[in-house]
Amino acid sequence: MDSVRKISPPRQVAIIGAGVIGAAWAARWLLRGCDVLIYDPSDEALQIVPEVLENARYAWERMGTSPKSEGSLTYTKTIDEAAGNADFIQESTPEDLQIKKSILREIEISADKSALIASSTSGLLPSNLQDEMRHPDRLVIGHPFNPVYLIPMVEVVGGEKTSAESISTAMSFYTHAGMKPLHVRVEIDAFIADRLLESVWREALWLVEDGVATTQEIDDVIRFGFGLRWAQMGLFENYRIAGGRGGMEHFIRQFGPSLDWPWSRLTDTPEMTEELVNRIAEQSDAQSGEYSVRELERIRDTNLVDMMLALENNAWGAGLAIRDLRENLN
Amino acid sequence: MDSVRKISPPRQVAIIGAGVIGAAWAARWLLRGCDVLIYDPSDEALQIVPEVLENARYAWERMGTSPKSEGSLTYTKTIDEAAGNADFIQESTPEDLQIKKSILREIEISADKSALIASSTSGLLPSNLQDEMRHPDRLVIGHPFNPVYLIPMVEVVGGEKTSAESISTAMSFYTHAGMKPLHVRVEIDAFIADRLLESVWREALWLVEDGVATTQEIDDVIRFGFGLRWAQMGLFENYRIAGGRGGMEHFIRQFGPSLDWPWSRLTDTPEMTEELVNRIAEQSDAQSGEYSVRELERIRDTNLVDMMLALENNAWGAGLAIRDLRENLN
Repeated sequence: MDSVRKISPPRQVAIIGAGVIGAAWAARWLLRGCDVLIYDPSDEALQIVPEVLENARYAWERMGTSPKSEGSLTYTKTIDEAAGNADFIQESTPEDLQIKKSILREIEISADKSALIASSTSGLLPSNLQDEMRHPDRLVIGHPFNPVYLIPMVEVVGGEKTSAESISTAMSFYTHAGMKPLHVRVEIDAFIADRLLESVWREALWLVEDGVATTQEIDDVIRFGFGLRWAQMGLFENYRIAGGRGGMEHFIRQFGPSLDWPWSRLTDTPEMTEELVNRIAEQSDAQSGEYSVRELERIRDTNLVDMMLALENNAWGAGLAIRDLRENLN
Repeated sequence: MDSVRKISPPRQVAIIGAGVIGAAWAARWLLRGCDVLIYDPSDEALQIVPEVLENARYAWERMGTSPKSEGSLTYTKTIDEAAGNADFIQESTPEDLQIKKSILREIEISADKSALIASSTSGLLPSNLQDEMRHPDRLVIGHPFNPVYLIPMVEVVGGEKTSAESISTAMSFYTHAGMKPLHVRVEIDAFIADRLLESVWREALWLVEDGVATTQEIDDVIRFGFGLRWAQMGLFENYRIAGGRGGMEHFIRQFGPSLDWPWSRLTDTPEMTEELVNRIAEQSDAQSGEYSVRELERIRDTNLVDMMLALENNAWGAGLAIRDLRENLN
């Protein structure tokens, strides 16, 4: 990480495509003091960008991270004007391989050879995006999450021809933007996050299709329930706690078999070989082994309480349950 | 809801089975001032209950909801002693149909006819649990989430023979306990939450099995990413925002087709009929239609900022990204 941090942040950032995602990228960079050049062929961008920027300014002020001075914002008439003057170019055009490839070729005509080019695609493979580029080594995926000016995660993925230096520069740039970049080491469709999101989304659609639950009921189960756990610990660390003193290995051995029960519409399950059980247990030890289960419980509970108090203060979601409880204290 | 609230809270609660779940139920009721009778055949309960109760006291004190006086805690030697003296009995024994049926029969021998009996099962069908009971009308599922003394959600499910009155009493009792009960109207394996959890869990296991990501990487994608959204809005309300002014219907029509792409290991997808699209759009309107997209964005962002500030204060998860950003402000 030390070597990564020595790279200077970009001075000028070009945003190609300014829908909700591109506009939010622009807002994040402006709030980090970088000059931003926006190209979008649609007039809608002129409406979306100021709206998103207003949201972002509000959020960063509430977060106490507003800059002394924002970067400058320029709308350009051509891709050339934007890409030709930037050392970092983020493409956020429609999710279509041919459109993106064509835009990337246009970007390359103007961009300085030293400029890094990132695509916001949520699932297209970088190797496919870069296969007709003249300098494919400088293409990376930087897949963000709505709202991009607030959610820290960005998945960084390289293709077959992406250089290690480009990955490292992207990690550095995104860190400078206040994000938590994760290098997705294996190139797969939909990367990591959207695979998880699509599974739960499909199951949710089945619940609505089958008339089991409404959208409101599904959302309530999440935001009053396990969503609170996931905001701070994810999946495996929570289950490690559920495993108690036996930890992750105990949890997997105890609950693994029930995965074969026909309890959902999506039942394809990897075989729970000794190798897989051990791999998960070892990875979990590497991840959380520095804490005892009691310590993890205390960390989890402190985070849950403080997040719910924050939500109570906003009279929203799980905070409403706390408010009701408080009103009914004897 | 008004009629629900007229029911008095339980005076004495029996906890049958005091592993992590049963112990946390006990803690929640004690902190609500109710007397609790615990039966568990294992000596481990004598260790687990005080540990969990200590965690719960810490959390409720931090939440500012500690009671003036806790209820009394009694360990009993028999199911009879616990169930015979309670007006609410919560069963949290191992996830095995035959074990639970046998325990429920034992509970019935002692329990007063007016007592409500709830099972903590995370997926067994209430109709199966109650099919040999003498008074099956008073059995409900009350499926909680770890840590039970903090997470507000509890799924309430009735079987074929469960009375409407029992559902209503359970909803009232759990509300009194500071929870957000959700009546799962259709009886299905795994109810709502565990269907969603199992889908994402299966996909996560594939990612580890296929060597794409480690447990730490998967957890980071969640807790620095979409987990933050889910802690306060769930799935559909977030996607409603992503649909912009077109709302949920626009989102579904735009992104629905990509569900058929082979982007995950779990690809069975309901057909996106006009009827399903309209159903989702209508349910989403009923759920969130009182707010404009701009208002929802502001609510979302305020919640995200405040939760991340809470996490920053605890030097944990997404709060670390904010802390790093703050340290690098110019």
